[in-house]
Amino acid sequence: MSRPAHSFSTRASFGDCDPAGIAFYPNILGWLDRTFHDWLWEFGGHAALCARLGARGIGVMEVSARFLAPIREGDRLTVELAVEEWKERAVRLAYRIGSNDRLVALGHETRGLFAQGPDGMMAARLDALRDVLEDHEKQAG
Amino acid sequence: MSRPAHSFSTRASFGDCDPAGIAFYPNILGWLDRTFHDWLWEFGGHAALCARLGARGIGVMEVSARFLAPIREGDRLTVELAVEEWKERAVRLAYRIGSNDRLVALGHETRGLFAQGPDGMMAARLDALRDVLEDHEKQAG
Amino acid sequence: MSRPAHSFSTRASFGDCDPAGIAFYPNILGWLDRTFHDWLWEFGGHAALCARLGARGIGVMEVSARFLAPIREGDRLTVELAVEEWKERAVRLAYRIGSNDRLVALGHETRGLFAQGPDGMMAARLDALRDVLEDHEKQAG
Amino acid sequence: MSRPAHSFSTRASFGDCDPAGIAFYPNILGWLDRTFHDWLWEFGGHAALCARLGARGIGVMEVSARFLAPIREGDRLTVELAVEEWKERAVRLAYRIGSNDRLVALGHETRGLFAQGPDGMMAARLDALRDVLEDHEKQAG
Repeated sequence: MSRPAHSFSTRASFGDCDPAGIAFYPNILGWLDRTFHDWLWEFGGHAALCARLGARGIGVMEVSARFLAPIREGDRLTVELAVEEWKERAVRLAYRIGSNDRLVALGHETRGLFAQGPDGMMAARLDALRDVLEDHEKQAG
Repeated sequence: MSRPAHSFSTRASFGDCDPAGIAFYPNILGWLDRTFHDWLWEFGGHAALCARLGARGIGVMEVSARFLAPIREGDRLTVELAVEEWKERAVRLAYRIGSNDRLVALGHETRGLFAQGPDGMMAARLDALRDVLEDHEKQAG
Repeated sequence: MSRPAHSFSTRASFGDCDPAGIAFYPNILGWLDRTFHDWLWEFGGHAALCARLGARGIGVMEVSARFLAPIREGDRLTVELAVEEWKERAVRLAYRIGSNDRLVALGHETRGLFAQGPDGMMAARLDALRDVLEDHEKQAG
Repeated sequence: MSRPAHSFSTRASFGDCDPAGIAFYPNILGWLDRTFHDWLWEFGGHAALCARLGARGIGVMEVSARFLAPIREGDRLTVELAVEEWKERAVRLAYRIGSNDRLVALGHETRGLFAQGPDGMMAARLDALRDVLEDHEKQAG
């Protein structure tokens, strides 16, 4: 994975887990989304960014995840997000979830910037979004 | 409870349940909200009703619930909704959740119609909403 | 509210919110449960406590909440929990959710300690649970 | 996709959707899991099957999904599940979500049968699970 752009920490709670006593997997994917949105707060948040870019949302087109070890209630988790690849109308993000220095899950999201086009919603070019996110990265670097 | 205005059926799934093997209570409250919104589809749905009434949302101001028996995965549930009382700017809804002829939970929601006022969001008068919902009831009756 | 026994901080995320742009209320109740379980980690966590007390779970019998102001994505929240009253087989907990020094929601849970009895699950006496939780309080005080 | 082994219908509710007005993607993945568990009820349900097979759970090792069109509140959805491939210790399931004869999402899960081994949880052989699920298929065919 490239250098993480952002990291988010949380703790698996009782209510995140299922009758088998481990985190219910849609909740694990919820932590990926939460990490992405937490990152966006460094740039004013999803709503402000969309307003600035004339878009309706920065949505998910594809997602995948591998679960390497069970996550149990009480486990402290760190989710790291890295930008893996910018394409013209899609950006691929990589996620790693660690717990106590052990890797417990890996994920990927492919996101696009959705704007109202003449024939409905369409994936817009990502140049402007990339400028915002990378300019900040440069300042931080 | 007054005569139910609407009823909604679902089945508790594995992912609705927690490590104690019973439905996680915030998910039970989610079924109340789901039943309310399912009812609104008889009138065009939440978004269309709000547009028609110049409102932003039909939101919850208060909620309460009593859990009488555990709900387990696989249980078939029926949620009944009844309008308990119309006030000027609030409507009180009563819910009963049954499973196999046994009452397993009771709930109440107090909802208002939220509109943009000069000083932020405010609870609007409910006359127009009541007219829509009761006119339909009369036609059905 | 009595002196808080525990406090838990989180941030409302995009995925916690609904199409009206505010936190979906079952998710707000999920934060109450999360705060309670976060508190239990000071005593070994829910599973260890239940094993020690011969119980199956510390479950919710009643819940109520009032929503005083909308919670929007990005809002930083602090949930405070206080023990309001110990009864023989039920404990009443009070919750306050604040955001930027403003009170945005109030809640109550009534919880019991559920154990397997001769005729199914039953609410057990709470003396032993109270001893654990209050002894810790005394040490901290 | 192979012939569907099971299909499950639901309706996207207000609370399934996010501030962009479309179904929050972890909730869409929740519908995949719900469809799988709904299928298992034809064989007694997850808990009974696990007891019969000496396992702790039929868990997800990998998941992926592609979102082809936005799912909005009120959309009626049908989720179809097909067994794509049986391996020694993993089964690959394919999902299709349709709404009004339009395909709106595709998904895959790789699941294993987890049992307590001498060194912790391990993926068990799937022969017995396959026998149960395919015998039923034959009877139905």
